[in-house]
Amino acid sequence: MRILDLETPAVVIDLAKVRANLARAQAHADTHGLKLRPHIKTHKLPLFANMQCEMGAIGITCQKVGEAEVMADAGLTDIFIPYNILGAAKLNRLLALHKRVTLSVTADSAVTIAGYAKHFTDPERPLPVLVECDTGMGRCGVQTVEEVVTLAKQIDAATGLRFEGLMTYPPRGEPEKVERWLADAIAALGESGLAVNTVSNGGSPDFYRAEQVTSATEHRPGTYIYSDRMQVAFGHGTLEDCAFTVLATVVSRPTDNRAIIDAGSKALAADTAPVPGHGHIVEYPDAVIGALSEEHGIVDLSNCAAKPEIGDKVRIIPNHVCPVSNLYDAVNIVEGDRVTETLVVAARSRLT
Amino acid sequence: MRILDLETPAVVIDLAKVRANLARAQAHADTHGLKLRPHIKTHKLPLFANMQCEMGAIGITCQKVGEAEVMADAGLTDIFIPYNILGAAKLNRLLALHKRVTLSVTADSAVTIAGYAKHFTDPERPLPVLVECDTGMGRCGVQTVEEVVTLAKQIDAATGLRFEGLMTYPPRGEPEKVERWLADAIAALGESGLAVNTVSNGGSPDFYRAEQVTSATEHRPGTYIYSDRMQVAFGHGTLEDCAFTVLATVVSRPTDNRAIIDAGSKALAADTAPVPGHGHIVEYPDAVIGALSEEHGIVDLSNCAAKPEIGDKVRIIPNHVCPVSNLYDAVNIVEGDRVTETLVVAARSRLT
Repeated sequence: MRILDLETPAVVIDLAKVRANLARAQAHADTHGLKLRPHIKTHKLPLFANMQCEMGAIGITCQKVGEAEVMADAGLTDIFIPYNILGAAKLNRLLALHKRVTLSVTADSAVTIAGYAKHFTDPERPLPVLVECDTGMGRCGVQTVEEVVTLAKQIDAATGLRFEGLMTYPPRGEPEKVERWLADAIAALGESGLAVNTVSNGGSPDFYRAEQVTSATEHRPGTYIYSDRMQVAFGHGTLEDCAFTVLATVVSRPTDNRAIIDAGSKALAADTAPVPGHGHIVEYPDAVIGALSEEHGIVDLSNCAAKPEIGDKVRIIPNHVCPVSNLYDAVNIVEGDRVTETLVVAARSRLT
Repeated sequence: MRILDLETPAVVIDLAKVRANLARAQAHADTHGLKLRPHIKTHKLPLFANMQCEMGAIGITCQKVGEAEVMADAGLTDIFIPYNILGAAKLNRLLALHKRVTLSVTADSAVTIAGYAKHFTDPERPLPVLVECDTGMGRCGVQTVEEVVTLAKQIDAATGLRFEGLMTYPPRGEPEKVERWLADAIAALGESGLAVNTVSNGGSPDFYRAEQVTSATEHRPGTYIYSDRMQVAFGHGTLEDCAFTVLATVVSRPTDNRAIIDAGSKALAADTAPVPGHGHIVEYPDAVIGALSEEHGIVDLSNCAAKPEIGDKVRIIPNHVCPVSNLYDAVNIVEGDRVTETLVVAARSRLT
């Protein structure tokens, strides 16, 4: 089957571009002695998680226990869940996972650690726990070095837990600030006799200067596998590097300068980017997807010399690719213009 | 099972509120002699589509052929797809559907009508086609009354098609303008000897003044079944009428005025509303969900007298409920605080 034979809207993933994006990132990590632990939230596909590990990643990152279960079922063996996991149901599932893969998690509160300590009690197979640090993102994470030490001690004191190190999801573009925060924490932990094995940093936006956070031992980029308009706007590669596109059909041309495509917010997601519009139309780079309804994209053709006709198919690079993956039950892998495989997005909507 | 026993994030739908919302809308339609043809894009559940019809709706509206297939499988018998359906694959599926349910569709171009005419050729069972009119929304639809007449004649001339009438998705708050547009078109069609059986108007925002568009014979509201913050902001009922909430857990309290919940853009969708924040927290009405990551909601508690603790569960009314439904494989029906049923969102992600 050829790409243009697909019913629309449909996701088309260029395998050669995926491989190139993965190779480039792995080389960057290797050059700087950083371990790579890709975040699978972007693709949610066992095929690509395994490919990332085969190319040199030390393991993967999942945001949800349910995602980790899917990846463990698919043969992934080293999974980090950088999340506060709470409640008996999730902790029991986490314990079951811990029995079959190398697992690690985070905590930013005594409550979270107490939950882990209650469910994980085997000193022979302790659960590694990293303390999450808010280095400026303003999301989760402890606010001070003193809190880091307090929580690390609590972890260290629990029979079935092991203090593994620090984790942060950093603010974009502030590596010096992140480095200072983490270095202070490591020094304070050292004074308390607590060794830091792992310092896990994250995010695709700053991945290509991840080495500036010198205390980090590993990085967890997600979006880099596909890239998207947002990554390109941040200066990472070009639109040609974007491996993930949504194929859509022009279903209406109500006026000379308006086209309607069959991809709306349920096909492209509603995330905005620091560039105009709701996606980049590859064949009509001057077109602007000015608004989305749920199943309609409203395209302004004012700046286009050539204009599409009703029935034409176009490919769209999303603003932010991660929530788009999550909207499709299946995606199509292509080599050149041939569809070589249709993959179920196995970890899609594993919300718990 | 009680609501608070659900793993989070989870969708909780209050059955009594659904029934009340449906009854109120049906009564409004009945009072004004309007037929009700609810849009199932909001709930994507056969149970509720059937309930809508049992309460008086004449049929349902689907936006995608795939949604219509699911609903036909579930026993729905009268389905309108107000969309330009293009391409041999979709048209063959449409033909198969036409053989088992009462189907109708729209077109706003000669190209779309030619596609219908090529696939539907049985004069004994013609496909009813409505001409879509752009009455001011600026999405699909013909721009002039002359185009309406031209397309209606093209439909009328096709052996296997029947000109059924007009369809519009109107601009919000401009019923006079919509009425004028449609009345002009009906008059012009009359002069050409073309009868208009159905004039289908749409949208929840203006449903409670739908009667102001006097030429409309039916209305296609969607969101009214659940309601959401956007509908309340538009003046339709109160937050207490909102039947659909997302149950989430507070997973972190990094600072005195910040809480993090385990519902981000993959659980609440990213649509904005004309009110601050990304959803209304029922238990903490003064809290503001100021930002969403994919799996984190960042909540500002500055204005809250009481504040939640880590592990607490809260219920969130979404800004726009339709894309939220679409993120979950299953939803939970509740009566009081008891979960009575968990339903697969059968028409979710039927994108083609």
